[in-house]
Amino acid sequence: MAQLTVGSAIAKARDLLIASGVPAQEAETTARCIVASDRWGIGSHGLMRLPFYLARLQAGGIKASAKLKVVTDLPSLVIFDGDDGLGHWQLQKGAEVAAERAQKNGIAAVGIGRSNHCGALGIYVWPMINKGLVGIAFSTGPAVMPPWGGNSTLLSTSPIAAGIPTDPPTVIDLATSAVARGKIQAKAQAGAELEPGWAFTKDGAPTTDAKEALAGMLAPLGGVKGYAIAVLVESLTGMLIGPTLAKNIPDMFAADQDRKSQEISHFIIAIDAAKLSVDGENSRTTDFAEYVAGAGGRLPGSNRVNPESLNGDDEITITDQVADQLAQWSSKLGI
Amino acid sequence: MAQLTVGSAIAKARDLLIASGVPAQEAETTARCIVASDRWGIGSHGLMRLPFYLARLQAGGIKASAKLKVVTDLPSLVIFDGDDGLGHWQLQKGAEVAAERAQKNGIAAVGIGRSNHCGALGIYVWPMINKGLVGIAFSTGPAVMPPWGGNSTLLSTSPIAAGIPTDPPTVIDLATSAVARGKIQAKAQAGAELEPGWAFTKDGAPTTDAKEALAGMLAPLGGVKGYAIAVLVESLTGMLIGPTLAKNIPDMFAADQDRKSQEISHFIIAIDAAKLSVDGENSRTTDFAEYVAGAGGRLPGSNRVNPESLNGDDEITITDQVADQLAQWSSKLGI
Repeated sequence: MAQLTVGSAIAKARDLLIASGVPAQEAETTARCIVASDRWGIGSHGLMRLPFYLARLQAGGIKASAKLKVVTDLPSLVIFDGDDGLGHWQLQKGAEVAAERAQKNGIAAVGIGRSNHCGALGIYVWPMINKGLVGIAFSTGPAVMPPWGGNSTLLSTSPIAAGIPTDPPTVIDLATSAVARGKIQAKAQAGAELEPGWAFTKDGAPTTDAKEALAGMLAPLGGVKGYAIAVLVESLTGMLIGPTLAKNIPDMFAADQDRKSQEISHFIIAIDAAKLSVDGENSRTTDFAEYVAGAGGRLPGSNRVNPESLNGDDEITITDQVADQLAQWSSKLGI
Repeated sequence: MAQLTVGSAIAKARDLLIASGVPAQEAETTARCIVASDRWGIGSHGLMRLPFYLARLQAGGIKASAKLKVVTDLPSLVIFDGDDGLGHWQLQKGAEVAAERAQKNGIAAVGIGRSNHCGALGIYVWPMINKGLVGIAFSTGPAVMPPWGGNSTLLSTSPIAAGIPTDPPTVIDLATSAVARGKIQAKAQAGAELEPGWAFTKDGAPTTDAKEALAGMLAPLGGVKGYAIAVLVESLTGMLIGPTLAKNIPDMFAADQDRKSQEISHFIIAIDAAKLSVDGENSRTTDFAEYVAGAGGRLPGSNRVNPESLNGDDEITITDQVADQLAQWSSKLGI
């Protein structure tokens, strides 16, 4: 494992993106969003992904010079065409626009189509939290789950994130699959059985055999209810925004598909929390946080630091493999 | 079991509500929403509840003459004070207002505080579906789930409903608890064990003992992820709208609390589905429905008939107990 500071990690990621043709500001935002995920301890969505973004930038699957193009502009709804650009800066920008419109109109949403993977979705509810708003975000990706009872994959891990301006802030960030594929891989390597409800065989039968599951499909969290939630996520992204369903989204880890754009879509809602109160009272956020602590629980994500004000001196850990890959890309791009 | 037509059931429910002091139009809407639940096969949220609404109307816990009062009116967000009225007509009205605003602004939301139980939440996404919009609804109720790892109840079953204008329409309608309390009662009566993940003891330990579970607490669907989703629901209802948290909401089945208003809150979002498309293409809804069927699955709720155009000649079934209770109320109210 290698340790580095948040500040140096952001600088390294930014420089690699700039050397790949990404404009400075978009590179800086993207680098910060990537490293925030590592700072949150979600290495799977942080710097580990950067070599794959760089490969796709080089092959053309991600367009370095992409601009956000306004397709629809209603008072409370803006739809952008992402022009095959990086998901991180596009979703950050989308969240800022949604927040601004929500402050005027009470609620607002931004959809971004033809974009790319955005890392940890929970990052993008912080522009709302930081303005005292509620943020809810949805995204899509390659299909890994079948419809309930079905025998082929149609739904992505169908992530949902939400931020609520409690103290500390509540950050919800979850995939609608029961577990991540990595957890099944770990069980397979350990020769262990899966818990019931994690996965299906390739024909759609429930299985607790890790190897069958790896050749098969992920299961939705909580059974058929999770399937229904995943359908909502796919509806608000690939189906209604588009331009494509999860079914057609190529795997970002498959090098032979690096030239193929992913055409991922994101949807983000901002709600002015302070305007919701029926009685002018806003102290219930404090009450609820206290009750949760008093019952021996904790608010979701309350250990996630604010990605819009990271401390550059904090340390993050990456694997030696990721450190090597980044070093190779640095020399390849002449940094 | 007793059979009756949808038309006669609506007339009976309406007459009982009118005899309890509810104005004719609100009584008609409420009766239709109640019976739609029975028509959907969700008897637990249909006529079975009517005797309890009537008891609360008589005792004062529900106010028959309630009006919706505008508290906040922003272009895309309206907050109503429900004045302790019946949840059904209030949420139906709220959904209609949200749909109208969304058609102007792209997205809109309505919050209703100080209201009451609304039956099956999925009923109220139909005003959106019928206009080609997406609807998402949240509601709250008495606390039955602890925070994750906690030892006392803070969260309601935290229902979420969503409607998507696919063909047939997608209707999502679920509680965020793993199972309903009724399912645990049935297991207890049968002397059977629960499945893991359904319930906690009163101290918050996971249990598969149905009797311990009945004295204990419901568990969220899919573990900690379901808890996070339930926190989002409570945030958008009891916490931010108010006037009260789930923790303080009295049980509608407890006769000794019939005089105490429940102060339930609802939140509903409408999104103009046709405006979301990044490429002007709207055929992906058809594609998705076909792919789901082709994979051997089905869209959530695709068997739920449109509650805004029920067929009065269709038949529904209620238990003899419910039929008796309604007959007693009819004679009590002089119908």
